[in-house]
Amino acid sequence: MFDDATIVAIATANGIGSISIVRISGPKAHEIASKISQKNAFQPRLATLSYLYDTNKNLIDEALVLYFKAPFSFTGEDVIEFQCHGGFAIANMIVDEVLKQGARLANPGEFSKRAFFNNKIDLTKAEAIAKIIEARSEDAVKLLARQLKGELTTFVNDIREDLLFMLAYTEVSIDYAEDDLPSDIFEQIKSKMEKIIVKLTNTLDASKRREGMIEGFKVAIIGKPNVGKSSLLNKLLNYDRAIISDIAGTTRDTIEESVKIGTHIIKIVDTAGIRNASDVIEKIGIEKSIQAINEADIVIALFDNSKICDDEDKKIIELIDENSHKEIIKVLNKSDLENYFDKSNIKDFIELSTKEDISPLIKKVENILDSNTHSDEMTLISKRQISSVENTLYNIDLSKTPLNSGELEFFAHYISEALEHISAITRPYENDQMLDVMFGEFCLGK
Amino acid sequence: MFDDATIVAIATANGIGSISIVRISGPKAHEIASKISQKNAFQPRLATLSYLYDTNKNLIDEALVLYFKAPFSFTGEDVIEFQCHGGFAIANMIVDEVLKQGARLANPGEFSKRAFFNNKIDLTKAEAIAKIIEARSEDAVKLLARQLKGELTTFVNDIREDLLFMLAYTEVSIDYAEDDLPSDIFEQIKSKMEKIIVKLTNTLDASKRREGMIEGFKVAIIGKPNVGKSSLLNKLLNYDRAIISDIAGTTRDTIEESVKIGTHIIKIVDTAGIRNASDVIEKIGIEKSIQAINEADIVIALFDNSKICDDEDKKIIELIDENSHKEIIKVLNKSDLENYFDKSNIKDFIELSTKEDISPLIKKVENILDSNTHSDEMTLISKRQISSVENTLYNIDLSKTPLNSGELEFFAHYISEALEHISAITRPYENDQMLDVMFGEFCLGK
Repeated sequence: MFDDATIVAIATANGIGSISIVRISGPKAHEIASKISQKNAFQPRLATLSYLYDTNKNLIDEALVLYFKAPFSFTGEDVIEFQCHGGFAIANMIVDEVLKQGARLANPGEFSKRAFFNNKIDLTKAEAIAKIIEARSEDAVKLLARQLKGELTTFVNDIREDLLFMLAYTEVSIDYAEDDLPSDIFEQIKSKMEKIIVKLTNTLDASKRREGMIEGFKVAIIGKPNVGKSSLLNKLLNYDRAIISDIAGTTRDTIEESVKIGTHIIKIVDTAGIRNASDVIEKIGIEKSIQAINEADIVIALFDNSKICDDEDKKIIELIDENSHKEIIKVLNKSDLENYFDKSNIKDFIELSTKEDISPLIKKVENILDSNTHSDEMTLISKRQISSVENTLYNIDLSKTPLNSGELEFFAHYISEALEHISAITRPYENDQMLDVMFGEFCLGK
Repeated sequence: MFDDATIVAIATANGIGSISIVRISGPKAHEIASKISQKNAFQPRLATLSYLYDTNKNLIDEALVLYFKAPFSFTGEDVIEFQCHGGFAIANMIVDEVLKQGARLANPGEFSKRAFFNNKIDLTKAEAIAKIIEARSEDAVKLLARQLKGELTTFVNDIREDLLFMLAYTEVSIDYAEDDLPSDIFEQIKSKMEKIIVKLTNTLDASKRREGMIEGFKVAIIGKPNVGKSSLLNKLLNYDRAIISDIAGTTRDTIEESVKIGTHIIKIVDTAGIRNASDVIEKIGIEKSIQAINEADIVIALFDNSKICDDEDKKIIELIDENSHKEIIKVLNKSDLENYFDKSNIKDFIELSTKEDISPLIKKVENILDSNTHSDEMTLISKRQISSVENTLYNIDLSKTPLNSGELEFFAHYISEALEHISAITRPYENDQMLDVMFGEFCLGK
């Protein structure tokens, strides 16, 4: 699956910090550490303060050395960690020395890849690690931490067991006379199948609702021209911006449209091109508004409280009514001016002025996101996981017809497919596992 | 000296990396780690994989926990390190939890300050740590690593011992009759003094010559207008720029004028305003050239090989001759064109064209820097250290007159002053140490 080279990489972020970590994994890790530190042996897991030298015996740094002996390490191989002084040069110099001693630079994700192939982590944990490093909100971290701890692995294993059970019983039904089997076997299979379908459907629904937890929830602003969309956009983008900057400090581009609200990250969907279009000459753009509603998790519909409710507003209201399944917040803007908007046209609105305080709107957004996210439902964190669950469900659905008509080979085929898809979430499916379960549960032996 | 609060900070650089470290120091460190990890006890120095939870028992992350029991830690206090997943959010969330458990955010340098007050490191080591993190070249790191290992501390201690010896003998001479003392006592004192003076003077010279090792060596370009200063500047600034960008990735401003040549960092001193001035209308600016020469470690004097050697060139040559103690590299530029420059006017020049290959010049700069830096002389790394040594020398110099005239109280006063200045390099001087030495060596006791 991979070569047995010893690999090395800097594990900490690039920049000024008091500590950096250089991580080595592979059969030569301990030997290399001994050479660089001029020490004979490191005791597993015990932090040892040591000087590090280059090949010409020049001192490079004083560092903590940590040794993790295979298989009790992240990768499952021998691992050495040098906790050296931070900054620009030292960690790179240590990496250079490690390379001179026969290691090679690790490819991106190669430590995790080795951990996976050595059965130290499964794919869900690998994905959680990758995403947790990129996560920008507390909610995202907590969601991912659950997957890191193995929640999805357990979920997948439970479903796999049920599917294996169904499959095993089916195989037995095919091979053996009916009277050797429990009479309610098909009832059991059908009941298990229904439970699986409910579980998977709920998970898919929750996951789609919470897709924004990691990358940010999408918020769209709609409304007729001159209603204050740009100024609301700017107000939102500047809301609590300091916190975001603190957290990040990297690529401005991706942050520019992300704002933290409570424990959530929101992204403004600018389908209507609010940022670039001049609000005055802009047309109402019903097409664009529909697109914005479709893409968004939350829609803010703006109306001008200082004007009467005109035909353009009514078009927006129509649009809202057609999309009542969406989270739509109605806002009467410019409420600091004299009010002329006929409020009988809309219900459950917020009155404010984007020139003044928008905190009631912020609160409302936060409440919606809180109620969407603050629960313990199982959540998938990647497109790969979602598509695996969708494929599992699809095959289970296909299996219903042959099960009802008694075509058990076809039924078994679809359940096998479902099993392969659900198993792929954690590990590529291996068929002999099914056999193990079958022989283990039934004790049919020779 | 400091409060006994438990302090916390992220010890790794800010940004995307696979690992971050949260460091806690103080009496509550272990207790806080126990609460957050829901584990009872950590064995000193032993890395323990643990889940970390917030106060609501939500999982935050899986982390390695390292416990260093006082006084066997960097700060000399109880220290906990959480090696958590990297990225934007997790380390901050862990810090938040630690704060909730009663720690406070560490001030910049506070861990090192505590280490100093708990006698774990002296000031030279503290300075070396601070500088090594900012270091941008291998040479700088190696220089600083020597100080990290205590080279300057040993150097200072040796000189202190000699000064204490001189002082102790003097005090004895004042208090006791002459015949109780060794007859050659003043010869011994004078001989020690001369050795100290040589040692300190050499160190000062070497340190000043090598000041550029850490921040970058200063290189100035001089020459009459239109000789190609700007294009050489640009060529230098773009030389090996990729490496600098790789190392850094932070504040563009400070890097913009730094270039790596071999194992050295150079900075272009733009006293003459080459970058902004239009080369054509610029006057020769002898004043500015003098300033540039004074500030630089290396001066590149440019002449135009395609023109005759005119009065302006001769002024530059005069300037070079007056500054023969400086490292000056003479370059005949535009050597790709027909040559008209009378080469009898200058010696040891390099012929090249900044439009083509400048590597002979680069090589020359590298050679000069190599010979200035590649030796094992004791080197001071900060203005503070240099000024302490200067003050030590100054007081030793003042002590000569009273020593020769037999005014021993005055002599003792200046040597005490010298002792205070040299001691300040590692630690503020405490007078009872002198007494210890005195009583210890002479056994005058009751």
